[in-house]
Amino acid sequence: MAKDVADFIVGRHAVLEALQQSPERAQELLISGGEKSGPLRKLMEAARTAGVKVRRVDARFMNELSQGASHQGVALRLAAGGYVELAEIIGRAQEAGNAGLVVLADHIQDPHNLGAVIRSAAAAGAQGLVVPKDRACGLTPAAAKTAAGALSFLPVARVVNLTQALEELKEAGLWALAAATRGAPAPWELDLNLPLVLVLGGEHKGVGDRLLKSCDLQASLPLAGGVESLNAAVAAGVLLFEIVRQRLQAV
Amino acid sequence: MAKDVADFIVGRHAVLEALQQSPERAQELLISGGEKSGPLRKLMEAARTAGVKVRRVDARFMNELSQGASHQGVALRLAAGGYVELAEIIGRAQEAGNAGLVVLADHIQDPHNLGAVIRSAAAAGAQGLVVPKDRACGLTPAAAKTAAGALSFLPVARVVNLTQALEELKEAGLWALAAATRGAPAPWELDLNLPLVLVLGGEHKGVGDRLLKSCDLQASLPLAGGVESLNAAVAAGVLLFEIVRQRLQAV
Repeated sequence: MAKDVADFIVGRHAVLEALQQSPERAQELLISGGEKSGPLRKLMEAARTAGVKVRRVDARFMNELSQGASHQGVALRLAAGGYVELAEIIGRAQEAGNAGLVVLADHIQDPHNLGAVIRSAAAAGAQGLVVPKDRACGLTPAAAKTAAGALSFLPVARVVNLTQALEELKEAGLWALAAATRGAPAPWELDLNLPLVLVLGGEHKGVGDRLLKSCDLQASLPLAGGVESLNAAVAAGVLLFEIVRQRLQAV
Repeated sequence: MAKDVADFIVGRHAVLEALQQSPERAQELLISGGEKSGPLRKLMEAARTAGVKVRRVDARFMNELSQGASHQGVALRLAAGGYVELAEIIGRAQEAGNAGLVVLADHIQDPHNLGAVIRSAAAAGAQGLVVPKDRACGLTPAAAKTAAGALSFLPVARVVNLTQALEELKEAGLWALAAATRGAPAPWELDLNLPLVLVLGGEHKGVGDRLLKSCDLQASLPLAGGVESLNAAVAAGVLLFEIVRQRLQAV
């Protein structure tokens, strides 16, 4: 059974983007607070264009549904999306041939980081994201907000066993590239112009040992200035766009 | 007059990193809450090694000094650091010759993004960061936490007029590269193996028109999948590490 994904998007920018980019999923624009500011008027107009009704709600309701994300007085209710099955992502990646790209994210705990990874993965043309079912953070409103609408473009699968999911992806012809925290070659020293699963670790631990053992390749970024590590979402973005660079330059 | 920068660092990971990497700035380890967990013991030990005294404070005090950042019951008071003068950053960049790299950030509003940019800039070997005095966000505890200690390695200058600062950096021999939101060549289509100022825009607006006009080069990342933009800190990281790649591969 697919579970609901990010039924609400909050915050002006994210809501506007969702209204414009995937009006078919938009169900209802929720607004709290009184003044009719310029940005709010723009949102109401976008809702009218998308055929989405507007409802006033009180601030407490808004705070509750936002679960701590900064909502700026606006939320958008979406038709229940859903996690997809791993098989669907595998199918899409196989169709993409050499452009196959899946992101498998272990243990990302900060919803802002997860949202930023979703946005980067979609922007890099990935066919899907695989996250673990029990640990790490889910697709909360804060994650969806940082993803800024990119969730509409990127199928997400939740799996019980990440190592097993990685094996299935490898059997389907993808190579597993681990984002290592240190000691591996720089990504530009590797040939990344092949169907890939990019395996990401969490904020502090990197990729877990068992998962790392299943990876075919490892890359780590050379860090200057005594810096121990990059922000997890930034490191993921750098690797994803190095993959994009190699693929575009290989053509 | 230099103003104090991030007098407190909060959160276990950031505090531990600061204790280990720049013990000379650490003044006092503050702890709220009772239990002696493993991570806490590790912190106390690091404080002892660094010769830093430990003080118990109440939770309300801790919440107040953290200004909303997640402190996990620990904070580290630092000796007043300070913003540096632009001239100091220019001097360092000139000494670096072809490896000259300065980041000039217009309008970054989210402290997490600012912190992640600081971390990426330090990791890419930048000689400094230039931010505007009145707008955008300052080096708050949340920014310092996301920077995870990298502030110790990266001089930051606050200036009244960003456009004028950019002119000074250009006169000093740096080329100005704007992170454009769209329509510019990909960064790997440009020769970035020269002394550079990377000019970043804020979360939603990109680089302002006046600043953009002063730039010698523009780069934008090709985005797939209907995604409008990347997270600001991720985009900055991708550009910074493309610069690193070109410089390392040119050797």
